[in-house]
Amino acid sequence: MPSKPSKKLETFANPQTVRDYRIRMEIPEFTCLCPRTGQPDFATLLLEYIPDRRCIELKSLKLYVWSFRNEGHFHEAVTNRILDDLVKATRPRYMRLTAKFNVRGGIHTVVTVRRGNPPTS
Amino acid sequence: MPSKPSKKLETFANPQTVRDYRIRMEIPEFTCLCPRTGQPDFATLLLEYIPDRRCIELKSLKLYVWSFRNEGHFHEAVTNRILDDLVKATRPRYMRLTAKFNVRGGIHTVVTVRRGNPPTS
Amino acid sequence: MPSKPSKKLETFANPQTVRDYRIRMEIPEFTCLCPRTGQPDFATLLLEYIPDRRCIELKSLKLYVWSFRNEGHFHEAVTNRILDDLVKATRPRYMRLTAKFNVRGGIHTVVTVRRGNPPTS
Amino acid sequence: MPSKPSKKLETFANPQTVRDYRIRMEIPEFTCLCPRTGQPDFATLLLEYIPDRRCIELKSLKLYVWSFRNEGHFHEAVTNRILDDLVKATRPRYMRLTAKFNVRGGIHTVVTVRRGNPPTS
Amino acid sequence: MPSKPSKKLETFANPQTVRDYRIRMEIPEFTCLCPRTGQPDFATLLLEYIPDRRCIELKSLKLYVWSFRNEGHFHEAVTNRILDDLVKATRPRYMRLTAKFNVRGGIHTVVTVRRGNPPTS
Amino acid sequence: MPSKPSKKLETFANPQTVRDYRIRMEIPEFTCLCPRTGQPDFATLLLEYIPDRRCIELKSLKLYVWSFRNEGHFHEAVTNRILDDLVKATRPRYMRLTAKFNVRGGIHTVVTVRRGNPPTS
Amino acid sequence: MPSKPSKKLETFANPQTVRDYRIRMEIPEFTCLCPRTGQPDFATLLLEYIPDRRCIELKSLKLYVWSFRNEGHFHEAVTNRILDDLVKATRPRYMRLTAKFNVRGGIHTVVTVRRGNPPTS
Amino acid sequence: MPSKPSKKLETFANPQTVRDYRIRMEIPEFTCLCPRTGQPDFATLLLEYIPDRRCIELKSLKLYVWSFRNEGHFHEAVTNRILDDLVKATRPRYMRLTAKFNVRGGIHTVVTVRRGNPPTS
Amino acid sequence: MPSKPSKKLETFANPQTVRDYRIRMEIPEFTCLCPRTGQPDFATLLLEYIPDRRCIELKSLKLYVWSFRNEGHFHEAVTNRILDDLVKATRPRYMRLTAKFNVRGGIHTVVTVRRGNPPTS
Amino acid sequence: MPSKPSKKLETFANPQTVRDYRIRMEIPEFTCLCPRTGQPDFATLLLEYIPDRRCIELKSLKLYVWSFRNEGHFHEAVTNRILDDLVKATRPRYMRLTAKFNVRGGIHTVVTVRRGNPPTS
Repeated sequence: MPSKPSKKLETFANPQTVRDYRIRMEIPEFTCLCPRTGQPDFATLLLEYIPDRRCIELKSLKLYVWSFRNEGHFHEAVTNRILDDLVKATRPRYMRLTAKFNVRGGIHTVVTVRRGNPPTS
Repeated sequence: MPSKPSKKLETFANPQTVRDYRIRMEIPEFTCLCPRTGQPDFATLLLEYIPDRRCIELKSLKLYVWSFRNEGHFHEAVTNRILDDLVKATRPRYMRLTAKFNVRGGIHTVVTVRRGNPPTS
Repeated sequence: MPSKPSKKLETFANPQTVRDYRIRMEIPEFTCLCPRTGQPDFATLLLEYIPDRRCIELKSLKLYVWSFRNEGHFHEAVTNRILDDLVKATRPRYMRLTAKFNVRGGIHTVVTVRRGNPPTS
Repeated sequence: MPSKPSKKLETFANPQTVRDYRIRMEIPEFTCLCPRTGQPDFATLLLEYIPDRRCIELKSLKLYVWSFRNEGHFHEAVTNRILDDLVKATRPRYMRLTAKFNVRGGIHTVVTVRRGNPPTS
Repeated sequence: MPSKPSKKLETFANPQTVRDYRIRMEIPEFTCLCPRTGQPDFATLLLEYIPDRRCIELKSLKLYVWSFRNEGHFHEAVTNRILDDLVKATRPRYMRLTAKFNVRGGIHTVVTVRRGNPPTS
Repeated sequence: MPSKPSKKLETFANPQTVRDYRIRMEIPEFTCLCPRTGQPDFATLLLEYIPDRRCIELKSLKLYVWSFRNEGHFHEAVTNRILDDLVKATRPRYMRLTAKFNVRGGIHTVVTVRRGNPPTS
Repeated sequence: MPSKPSKKLETFANPQTVRDYRIRMEIPEFTCLCPRTGQPDFATLLLEYIPDRRCIELKSLKLYVWSFRNEGHFHEAVTNRILDDLVKATRPRYMRLTAKFNVRGGIHTVVTVRRGNPPTS
Repeated sequence: MPSKPSKKLETFANPQTVRDYRIRMEIPEFTCLCPRTGQPDFATLLLEYIPDRRCIELKSLKLYVWSFRNEGHFHEAVTNRILDDLVKATRPRYMRLTAKFNVRGGIHTVVTVRRGNPPTS
Repeated sequence: MPSKPSKKLETFANPQTVRDYRIRMEIPEFTCLCPRTGQPDFATLLLEYIPDRRCIELKSLKLYVWSFRNEGHFHEAVTNRILDDLVKATRPRYMRLTAKFNVRGGIHTVVTVRRGNPPTS
Repeated sequence: MPSKPSKKLETFANPQTVRDYRIRMEIPEFTCLCPRTGQPDFATLLLEYIPDRRCIELKSLKLYVWSFRNEGHFHEAVTNRILDDLVKATRPRYMRLTAKFNVRGGIHTVVTVRRGNPPTS
């Protein structure tokens, strides 16, 4: 896999458009830099969505997550940014992103962003 | 048990048709192949349903799950396919299938498909 | 305790009939036989109920559970049967029984049967 | 602390009466005697309440719990009794008591008693 | 970081004011003194809020938590006090604070205070 | 599998007799009766051995364990008895059997019996 | 079981005196009083021994443990006392007793007393 | 990765031959067939070794494990076979392989095979 | 308990001087300050010792631990200091102290100091 | 903290040189690149050492770990390299480094490198 980190998200046609269903992904290897100190931050991303016409392609998601590695981002802003990018690429019926950041200053921060209404169950 | 893998699901008459009740099954031994690379994929299936007239027979379910072993299937499509097969065989009042796939490319994927409305509790 | 296994459930007067309250019991030692193969099956029973006038007496419940030891029963049918017996003996405002059977053929089965509407919390 | 076991519960003025808030207490050291056999019973008590004008004073609660040590009580009755005593002492907006008794005869019993409606979250 | 403990909470502009999103923080290093005995108390604080125009700045929150170290506070009062300070500083759409205090006298106390209505999911 | 419970243990030729290796088996479904009260007892068996010329055949072990179901046995005696039977059938270089019995009278009992010296690692 | 608490330990003849084997018992329901304050203390006892001619009878052990309920004992002294009583009653080849006391003053204390040399594995 | 399952193990030169060090690998995706019934078996492999001149190449190990997918093998024999193959390919100073098979007939089997003496720590 | 923090450790006569036995204490509420930044550090202390003539008195140990609250200490030095103080006060046959400090800069540090040789088991 | 990633490890004088003691550090935020594919790898580092004259300074260790972020390294080689660097900087009496890498190709790899003999306990 000689691929490069990239912000370009690829999608594929949802194989089931008659009924709604839910996809969840756990990505424990997100890392970026703190814009103030330049030091590395680490997080586990939890993504949940109900696809409409397009699903997120797994490999391009991996390269997308990788693309933040050497960029500076604040916790709250980057979580909102990633949701916006994923929503733009897939236009889902519902999407929720949770970023669980590692402890800094003795405090463990978790940011949860949502687009649309959550499924009944 | 000299049985063979088979897509044919067998059922038996629901012994209790007066009241609704819930059956859950955990099947940690699902495996198929990736259609792009041909490599094995592994998942734990979680099935939950409220039977109407027919219940799924345990041994035929095992052979059904086994029948995917050397077939190529995408995560999202195969989860929808299995639910469709189970619904066709049993015509349940409610059914939900969750497939928890093993980590690929550092990402853990879970697909949840549902037919009908979930029970109150 | 020279008692014998018995299907006869004993009850005692509910000491608190003014307000509703909930009793839960976990019984990890249920065992019966498979009607097809004659081999032993094992389950943990989880009982939850809101008593009306009568509560289930603990020792008679133990003997009742014991009485299935050498009888043949299917998973779905025996769970419904036990609920029916407990409902007939206590006439509760609400009762739910969950039977978590041990793994057979790589599949772990859980059956949940309910009588009446669940409590708010 | 030369205090004695006592059924007398002390309270203090709720420091925040403008808004509702929730207090939970876990008390793993409850013990009393079985009225039939005289043998010791053990339980963990879980108390949750929304105070109105009075809060339960921690030390007097400890002495109150201790006061049951050598008294005979049935599971269902003593849980209701403790809730009644706590409600009378504090007149809360909401209170729930759960008593998780140790295994007897292979059965683990949990009794939950409630006064008023549970909080939204 | 030559900073000092301080009750002054700093905030920054919410980078996303179009949609609601949730921030949770776990702070396991809260300690103050018991006003009656002068002895140390310890708690883990769990904060959850939906920001409006301002977010809590992480470092100032750490110094704020530190500022209680040598002050005397009762469990119920200090939890309400911290919520009030955080609400005044950020004017959030919703905020909930849970303080889980260490065992004292064999009793584990948890206080939960809330401002506004909880999010749907 | 129309087999019957049986004390007859079957074995097969060890496929590797040049080097020593270790086999462990966990059998959570052992049950017999208490010789004094006639009531059911339950245990999880943990077997560990280094085979010499013969290995224990899995299905016959299952039928052997099943054969105790309606017999009366004391904890200490039955654990020694099972080890003796397994040693006689396989003549292993080393064997250890641990029986973890369910709680009775608030006491959880574990019996460990050994034949020969344990392996270095 | 109309039995009374009693310091008298009963034993039965070891059914296997040819080889050494190990018996472990976990007793989570030990309670006595603090000799200084009179308040209840709680502990889980872990007993391990290699019997010689006599084994400890389960029911009399339960009554023995119960007999400490209203007596005052220090942690270190009572753990040594119980080991001495058990050794005198059974004359084992090896015995070890561990008492894990509940948290007092923010400190969790565990006392381990041994008689004879521990088994190889 | 268009590679095929293959029994050919590839190795690379140990980058550190002055001192001994330990490599452990957990491979939860081993599957083969039962030679008697033809049904799938599943296991987690735990490999530990001290390399001498050659280390096992990760991708070829994955393809090697995959190569057993549609072959019939007994638990004890296949674990010994895999160790033999790995030892022949790398000539390690020490190697240990543990195969933890899924439950069959209510019994969970673990086979551990070793070549050479284990490291001190 | 109107006591004050104090470096003075009190002891009591070991009630059992004929045989060696082991005392372990877990103290999760240690806190001091960082000498460089002045900020709070937190640790859980694990103490294990074999007493000779004197045992550590529980309440004075609590006050001793409390006495570090507003003092500046480095991790490695303070762990050695506490062991030295405890050894001087009790002259034990063996003592080991482990201090598990909370995460700082993404690193979790544990310091273990020992006096004398550890017990066989 | 405006510091930069750096391979330069700083040390401080061991505050206790009379007796041996052990320091352990868990560093869950190690990341580097795969030399073959250029993709990120992640690991948790576990360091254990007995210092001689010098201890590792915490902040410089953090910057050292950070310095591998954009460098290509193989699992086995980089673990040996880090141990060599730490040994050169501190000349410890004993040191062990374990690197637990995240799952790649369904395989979880752990490398353990050691310098000198491990402590007795």
